[in-house]
Amino acid sequence: MRNLAKQPGDGQRREFVLTLACDDKPGLTAAVTGTLADNEGNILDAQQYRDPLSLRFFMRIVFELTTGAEVERIRADLPQAMNATGLDWRIRPAARPRRVLMMVSRYDHCLADLLYRHRTGELNMEVAGIVSNHPRSVFDTGLLGDLPFHHLPIAKGRKHEQEQQVRRIIADTGAELVVLARYMQILSDDFAADLRGMCINIHHSFLPAFKGGRPYQQAFARGVKMIGATAHYVTADLDEGPIIAQDVEHIDHADSPQELVRKGRDIERRVLASAVRYHLEDRVLLSGDRKTVVFA
Amino acid sequence: MRNLAKQPGDGQRREFVLTLACDDKPGLTAAVTGTLADNEGNILDAQQYRDPLSLRFFMRIVFELTTGAEVERIRADLPQAMNATGLDWRIRPAARPRRVLMMVSRYDHCLADLLYRHRTGELNMEVAGIVSNHPRSVFDTGLLGDLPFHHLPIAKGRKHEQEQQVRRIIADTGAELVVLARYMQILSDDFAADLRGMCINIHHSFLPAFKGGRPYQQAFARGVKMIGATAHYVTADLDEGPIIAQDVEHIDHADSPQELVRKGRDIERRVLASAVRYHLEDRVLLSGDRKTVVFA
Amino acid sequence: MRNLAKQPGDGQRREFVLTLACDDKPGLTAAVTGTLADNEGNILDAQQYRDPLSLRFFMRIVFELTTGAEVERIRADLPQAMNATGLDWRIRPAARPRRVLMMVSRYDHCLADLLYRHRTGELNMEVAGIVSNHPRSVFDTGLLGDLPFHHLPIAKGRKHEQEQQVRRIIADTGAELVVLARYMQILSDDFAADLRGMCINIHHSFLPAFKGGRPYQQAFARGVKMIGATAHYVTADLDEGPIIAQDVEHIDHADSPQELVRKGRDIERRVLASAVRYHLEDRVLLSGDRKTVVFA
Amino acid sequence: MRNLAKQPGDGQRREFVLTLACDDKPGLTAAVTGTLADNEGNILDAQQYRDPLSLRFFMRIVFELTTGAEVERIRADLPQAMNATGLDWRIRPAARPRRVLMMVSRYDHCLADLLYRHRTGELNMEVAGIVSNHPRSVFDTGLLGDLPFHHLPIAKGRKHEQEQQVRRIIADTGAELVVLARYMQILSDDFAADLRGMCINIHHSFLPAFKGGRPYQQAFARGVKMIGATAHYVTADLDEGPIIAQDVEHIDHADSPQELVRKGRDIERRVLASAVRYHLEDRVLLSGDRKTVVFA
Repeated sequence: MRNLAKQPGDGQRREFVLTLACDDKPGLTAAVTGTLADNEGNILDAQQYRDPLSLRFFMRIVFELTTGAEVERIRADLPQAMNATGLDWRIRPAARPRRVLMMVSRYDHCLADLLYRHRTGELNMEVAGIVSNHPRSVFDTGLLGDLPFHHLPIAKGRKHEQEQQVRRIIADTGAELVVLARYMQILSDDFAADLRGMCINIHHSFLPAFKGGRPYQQAFARGVKMIGATAHYVTADLDEGPIIAQDVEHIDHADSPQELVRKGRDIERRVLASAVRYHLEDRVLLSGDRKTVVFA
Repeated sequence: MRNLAKQPGDGQRREFVLTLACDDKPGLTAAVTGTLADNEGNILDAQQYRDPLSLRFFMRIVFELTTGAEVERIRADLPQAMNATGLDWRIRPAARPRRVLMMVSRYDHCLADLLYRHRTGELNMEVAGIVSNHPRSVFDTGLLGDLPFHHLPIAKGRKHEQEQQVRRIIADTGAELVVLARYMQILSDDFAADLRGMCINIHHSFLPAFKGGRPYQQAFARGVKMIGATAHYVTADLDEGPIIAQDVEHIDHADSPQELVRKGRDIERRVLASAVRYHLEDRVLLSGDRKTVVFA
Repeated sequence: MRNLAKQPGDGQRREFVLTLACDDKPGLTAAVTGTLADNEGNILDAQQYRDPLSLRFFMRIVFELTTGAEVERIRADLPQAMNATGLDWRIRPAARPRRVLMMVSRYDHCLADLLYRHRTGELNMEVAGIVSNHPRSVFDTGLLGDLPFHHLPIAKGRKHEQEQQVRRIIADTGAELVVLARYMQILSDDFAADLRGMCINIHHSFLPAFKGGRPYQQAFARGVKMIGATAHYVTADLDEGPIIAQDVEHIDHADSPQELVRKGRDIERRVLASAVRYHLEDRVLLSGDRKTVVFA
Repeated sequence: MRNLAKQPGDGQRREFVLTLACDDKPGLTAAVTGTLADNEGNILDAQQYRDPLSLRFFMRIVFELTTGAEVERIRADLPQAMNATGLDWRIRPAARPRRVLMMVSRYDHCLADLLYRHRTGELNMEVAGIVSNHPRSVFDTGLLGDLPFHHLPIAKGRKHEQEQQVRRIIADTGAELVVLARYMQILSDDFAADLRGMCINIHHSFLPAFKGGRPYQQAFARGVKMIGATAHYVTADLDEGPIIAQDVEHIDHADSPQELVRKGRDIERRVLASAVRYHLEDRVLLSGDRKTVVFA
């Protein structure tokens, strides 16, 4: 299907997404909404959260500007209006698609799902390219179309070199998000650290259960009655990154490991698609090193 | 179990819930949050929604007042600060329990569940009494304890008289919410109209499927693969009231109508409890005559 | 991805699926399992159900034959061993893929999903072709690959002619199942009747709620808190055919009709894929004109 | 509510449940069903499963006897008809309630739920008594009614003595099942071993995630997006017993540990009730030391 979906923010409507985090204090919401009102920003949606442990304040506001108003004035006024410590904020035009680099190994169900959702207009992104440690011939050609494909195998002991190539693609394409769509290689600590908050992985278990390899076999061996998947930001600490989305399904004793793999594919692609969509819509904020705030 | 749960808002913390609906226009959020900030109200949670069809604006804000500040000043300032048409608003202390009248017929699983949740502190309410068209002896005495019980049968053609008795109990106890916890009598149009927005019913189907009587038998006859329950505000238009909460479960061909009834009990009590809790926490706003906004 | 999945029943293992329905009487299970045992059939899985209203007995048995044994002997012995009235039965080799004709209109998410699952080996079928009332250019070429595509528009008042063309394709390809994968045309009564039990449709609501057109708009207007999809066999009685699978998801007031459509796509493709898989694995038996027995 | 539910197997209908496990070989199903047919047993429901790793065969059959037929003849014929190694089997009258001992600490939501389901007739059991390490005064008297209550605190270093008392109650009452309904004490290895397959515990996490204490706090700290509960048979290896049932619910960043506890209560009581019902209906068979076969 051609992309029939109307893209949001098509010139007439100028929608923006403001996300921010800072140390909590009274009056923050009023300061933000007042700044928007003073600069002709009309709030369409607003969500906020105060973490009771870290005492950090998180906010996401979708607003539109009336004709003639300038978002730069909001950008200029906001920090002093808030006068908050530890302030981290950004304003993005809601309509602008972000460039996304996909990385995949042999199993392409998650990749296929993301590409299909892209075509239906559900994911507001541009595909910067596809990186695989397997050759293009492994994949269905209809799936890949004429997207830039990079076969970057990892020679023994030379992961660093391959990652340099990936870094170059990210730099060249201006990719703002990297999605590990069942990419079965572990990123080096350096690379993981550099991709902080901009690299999403799908793990095929309901973490923290069944960390590490072959989770469906682990699940079968343990005799659990449900399996799941977890989408999380990649960190150097494997399978410990901040969780964005999770889901599960019921299974029973008669489900073989192969059947678990089949059922798991559906959960994985659903969970990863949710996490990527949340990220692209600026709904996910990091809360410390291990948690996320997701304004769903 | 005795009520071990800490009640919110216990004197030191003074939390309030502001709910409002009005015709949409720019600057509403800033006007509300500014009014709160000007009067030492610190926003703890805020949600809003603009209905794209009716162009009505809905908002729920939880705020706390610093010591010495007075909620009456907010009450005084808010309407003029907003200057909105069709404004409907209220501010309630979050801690004050509301008085609730329960009505029940023979099946008491929903009643039992609500009373248990009350005891655990999950539902911030006082039970104003229990009305049934069946005598007290039908029910387990442990369940009812020493709650005021009113046996109000409906003599043929004399529903009006019985409803007068219920109205009197509502007036005498100051009940602010009436819960039809599997009360198998249809309220008269007058009574339903007078209870607009303050009477919640549980219907044992996923409305609008299987309106009317014996929904589990209807579901069995139709061969659906899931059953459900719906909690809604009562209106004169039977089974058409604004829906607050719904849920379903999967069934299969082997489930007899009796088995559906058993599975349904779990869904009914879960859905009704959610709807009552949302109402008691001021999370439900009426949106026209047929819909709700639920800030969950 | 190339079809990497190992197909079941690859020569060494000879698995068969026996399905049957008949009027209930004592000893049926023993008669069937005895016949299998006498002819060297080893039972791998067995499920049965007796409908308490119609007193019909339903059974599905997966068995394998030891080397040298012949399934024809079982076929010959079974009817007399059972000696049952209203007996309807068949034995199929589990490994043989069935030929499936897909019909689709403009929205191709269900088609794309089925084709992908076919490629992963999850659906044991051969695609006999794709019929659409829209031209091939409407669809993504990567999706269709070199599958036979038939553009069969319906000229005003000439549905009968178009259906004749579809009938011819079914006959020519030996299609054993027709899947209406969001085919937005109503089959004529004749055609629906002729396809009894071999044509699966996906309806985008949790039937019997929101029959007819534009169910997501109906759902939005009614203010329900969940949406769903229903896969059913096609009958002349529109939206009343025997239901095979259903599923739902929670929504809230903020979901626009467009958002419901997006969420609905996921439910539709999941539900249709389940129903098609159940059918292909001989797990679905018709129970009268309106219900199914699904041995999941 | 008084127990209004009709008990199954009320004299006229004589239903039995046969459960068995043995090493797999061809013809087992035919041998069992043939034995039943030869002795006037009419099969109402039958399920079977062959574990592909252990090559064990599991079966559950519900059958009824025609008037005059004797179940003892089936009991006599079955072992030789099957001639199977490692055979473990039993036949129980479906209607006979089993005696169940409940053990509970401070949190009584699971206990309350089980007792309520007992009163509605959903759980076919007799309550042999309630054991708690807390005094009766901790609990709501309406809940306990006149059920035998044993306050058995555990003095420091004297767990063995308390367990002796529990053993005596089990012996005296003939309890066939012990349910740890949020009993926050760890059984000694000896006691756990002696209760193999007849003691069900509810753990408040989706095992194997968050083993050990305070799982909701662990879940909050890790930032997972769902919480769950697990019902399992008790073994000496804590939190590693064979799982019978699990379920989860979605949560988000705004759910405090207290909110998780509230949501968790609903999951816990639902999961434990399912597991107890499956056990009472002879639907659960142990498969080795760590897994179960549940014919749901």
